[in-house]
Amino acid sequence: MIERLCLIGVGLIGGSLALALRQKGLVREVIGVDPHWANLETARELEIIDRCYLDPVTGVEGADWVVIATPVGAIPAIFSALKPFWQKDTVYTDTGSTKADVVEAAREIFGEVPDNFVPGHPIAGAESSGASAANAALFEHKRVILSPLAETRPDMVDQVEMLWRSVGGRVSRMDYRHHDEVFAATSHMPHVLAFVLTQMLGRKDEQQEIFQYAAGGFRDFTRIASSDPRMWLDICLANRGEIVPLIEEYREVLGQTAELIAHGEADKLLALFTGARAARQRFLDQLEK
Amino acid sequence: MIERLCLIGVGLIGGSLALALRQKGLVREVIGVDPHWANLETARELEIIDRCYLDPVTGVEGADWVVIATPVGAIPAIFSALKPFWQKDTVYTDTGSTKADVVEAAREIFGEVPDNFVPGHPIAGAESSGASAANAALFEHKRVILSPLAETRPDMVDQVEMLWRSVGGRVSRMDYRHHDEVFAATSHMPHVLAFVLTQMLGRKDEQQEIFQYAAGGFRDFTRIASSDPRMWLDICLANRGEIVPLIEEYREVLGQTAELIAHGEADKLLALFTGARAARQRFLDQLEK
Repeated sequence: MIERLCLIGVGLIGGSLALALRQKGLVREVIGVDPHWANLETARELEIIDRCYLDPVTGVEGADWVVIATPVGAIPAIFSALKPFWQKDTVYTDTGSTKADVVEAAREIFGEVPDNFVPGHPIAGAESSGASAANAALFEHKRVILSPLAETRPDMVDQVEMLWRSVGGRVSRMDYRHHDEVFAATSHMPHVLAFVLTQMLGRKDEQQEIFQYAAGGFRDFTRIASSDPRMWLDICLANRGEIVPLIEEYREVLGQTAELIAHGEADKLLALFTGARAARQRFLDQLEK
Repeated sequence: MIERLCLIGVGLIGGSLALALRQKGLVREVIGVDPHWANLETARELEIIDRCYLDPVTGVEGADWVVIATPVGAIPAIFSALKPFWQKDTVYTDTGSTKADVVEAAREIFGEVPDNFVPGHPIAGAESSGASAANAALFEHKRVILSPLAETRPDMVDQVEMLWRSVGGRVSRMDYRHHDEVFAATSHMPHVLAFVLTQMLGRKDEQQEIFQYAAGGFRDFTRIASSDPRMWLDICLANRGEIVPLIEEYREVLGQTAELIAHGEADKLLALFTGARAARQRFLDQLEK
């Protein structure tokens, strides 16, 4: 049982976590911290949080758990604010979509990463954002990655693992650098590709209406382009070291494919498309496991 | 009421059309033509067709309607086969995903495009293919584009329009060149992007398991990479003149975006992502109309 959970960033992820914990009776009191007062009021009306503050320092007072669920770009400033008030027996964790930048910020600000901070990342999301999008079932059967360091206290990692399990998550542990490499490929780069396509076609649509003839395939392909722009800006900048080389590799392969199309290389194209379909089937088989 | 419909190509599109017409009692007899005998047997078991042939020439005998629903690459050979047996009062139409190549093939083979051939394209599909995937509701509320030429008989166009309306389609008319320009942008290029991404990540997945951490966003983004490779090969080759320049434009914009990420150009990136989200909302608003 958590006595007092301080949730810094009351958005889709944080709000959903708090709702789920409440519904299961696993938390006595939730303190919300967020820079947007209207969002905090929404969260209070939805009974996601009990009390709220704009300032994290006031929010964490007396908390036995602190969950940082802001866009990743906001995390270093939160670490700096919390540093003088860091409590050695409080469990600290985050939900950031990138992990190397969070670990490095902690190392820089605290000298070494505090042994009671457990870097984490629930693989869940939606196009919607803010407290009003919170959904207690969001983490059911979803993967959650924890990236503890050698110095992280095992009892802290176990508690965070149990927290996510209690709301339905399937927890894996992964080195923080490997985390960023994997998610650059399967999440970050695809988001950039979708943003770029949608923006480019949006400009064409202004000149000659093309969107009215687009169908379900286009809707699904561009769904992630409706994601929160601020959150994705932070992710792109935080993980640029992994994302930029992948984009360059993708541009290269795409250029070769355009050549194959231009020159009517039917056999090679068929092999590429068939290989893609087989690869996706492999992905789907794993998703259903 | 159609007396005898000859369906050349008994796949998802043709099979779904025949099923829908049958359920509504709008066709007395359906003759299926397909190069795959097993597929024809499936279609007969599912009562999509009454009789079947491997050879289009035998299939079209006595038909008052002929619908060509093969991959577009197969259409020129079908035109050549049917030419000596072309009936002036039969309604001919196709369901090809590209239109300029079909019109040009007709022009080349017949000298001029027959005035009773109505180029068409129902905007419907799924990852599944073949007669077993046929679904009578496939065209409900779906757009269908007809691209009649100046020489096409208006009564033929009207009949084809009524056919699609009767199975739930929303019919628009569009110049065949404009059709290929629009669909290169909203359908053909996105398919190539998805095939290339999925194949590239498939190779990475073989070296270090990345697919097991991919989630719903990736599933939706890559759904179209599960489309029929042969059909998409034909589309890419048929419409290469529109697709290749769009891919090059996309590569260019993507390269600029990678530069913005590499140099931490936060304001420009935020504007791009925000613009993309707004463009997608514009698309969604039209989709729901």
